[in-house]
Amino acid sequence: MTVFKLTIEYDGTPFGGWQKTKERESVQGTLEQALAVLLRAPFILQGASRTDAGVHATGQVASLRTDALIPPNRLVRGLSALCAPHIAVTRADIAPDDFNARFDTTGKHYLYTILNRSARSPLYANRSWHVPARLDPERMRAAAARFVGTFDFAGFRAADCGRINTVRTITGVDIRFPGGDLIEIHVTGTAFLKHMVRIMAGTLVDIGRGALPSDAVEQVLASGDRRRAGRTAPARGLTLVTVFY
Amino acid sequence: MTVFKLTIEYDGTPFGGWQKTKERESVQGTLEQALAVLLRAPFILQGASRTDAGVHATGQVASLRTDALIPPNRLVRGLSALCAPHIAVTRADIAPDDFNARFDTTGKHYLYTILNRSARSPLYANRSWHVPARLDPERMRAAAARFVGTFDFAGFRAADCGRINTVRTITGVDIRFPGGDLIEIHVTGTAFLKHMVRIMAGTLVDIGRGALPSDAVEQVLASGDRRRAGRTAPARGLTLVTVFY
Repeated sequence: MTVFKLTIEYDGTPFGGWQKTKERESVQGTLEQALAVLLRAPFILQGASRTDAGVHATGQVASLRTDALIPPNRLVRGLSALCAPHIAVTRADIAPDDFNARFDTTGKHYLYTILNRSARSPLYANRSWHVPARLDPERMRAAAARFVGTFDFAGFRAADCGRINTVRTITGVDIRFPGGDLIEIHVTGTAFLKHMVRIMAGTLVDIGRGALPSDAVEQVLASGDRRRAGRTAPARGLTLVTVFY
Repeated sequence: MTVFKLTIEYDGTPFGGWQKTKERESVQGTLEQALAVLLRAPFILQGASRTDAGVHATGQVASLRTDALIPPNRLVRGLSALCAPHIAVTRADIAPDDFNARFDTTGKHYLYTILNRSARSPLYANRSWHVPARLDPERMRAAAARFVGTFDFAGFRAADCGRINTVRTITGVDIRFPGGDLIEIHVTGTAFLKHMVRIMAGTLVDIGRGALPSDAVEQVLASGDRRRAGRTAPARGLTLVTVFY
């Protein structure tokens, strides 16, 4: 038996998310169909993060357990060819036998991208949230710093998030301005609740445009009240950049 | 009569280029169909650059002459709504009566984007040239500097380029590494021949991977011999960033 660590990039636009569903094509389902062709043997594929429908990844990780004998570079080329154009496997490494991409993570880095100008952008339409309102970068930066630490994030999760323990540790929230009216929110943390990064981004935008008070982050962290946070920012602006082990 | 200066962004992927053709949808043709609906009056639309099929723009400029009375912000909103999703008009400004977007330009800034890694990228597939070979950045930088100045670019143009005067002035060629295995070649100049930036990019890549000698740029500039230059880099890696007036 061999365990591979696969690193995967995808444009999430056409998919119903990482996880297999009956309704829509999924990233996992597309990879599994290709693996069935390539391996001709049983396998188990486990993704690090169940990204939502429309969410992208440059560095999603999955563990692949199989008895099939296949060199890592054939896995990279075969999966990338069979899963084109929206999915590419950028690396395959042989991992320890007990490696599990989901349960062994020590952290993740997500990027949320905002296009902040009046006109929409054809080139960033599927990759960003278009926010025409003027945003105050200093208000956003000051609020972003409040997320860093270990807190109960019960107010920053989807209504159907089933987790019992809602305490999470955020290690960094950096706001960057790479040019071209783009705002990047880089969030790193040890683990995340459902929609957590998207609600964090939506709250920072509402603070930035003055629709929420500047201490809204502290208020929601203290109260656990989802209604005092901002909207859930759209999935298309979110990219899973790196999974740490 | 009013003359507007329109600033236009587009994802060139679905288009046969800026200019109207019989075979494929064009950026100009799409805008003209929308203008016919919006203005209900005769008009003339003149683009600054005839971008090739598949080439993108963040700052294409067009002049629009019309007797129709329409406020600039209605033009922005109307054209962007009617030309979605691949074209957006990001600005409309009232220009002097004699403004012509094509003949009044003093320069242009093009960006050529290369993805330099073994795996292809779903997120940059339509926006970059995927070059798996290892490229030497210092060789590319040194060669890029040789383009700067006023030279006969006869060796850096398409076979069917009809220009008689092939002397052009390049004011800057900057190679940048924004991260994520991307290489950006920023080219500014007063005017360009057909495929000129794409052949410049292809030549720099061939120099970077050692397929052409390090003095290939000087050789082609001196000889005017297209065969000693590199391949024509694919259109999808090219973006017209800014047109100067």
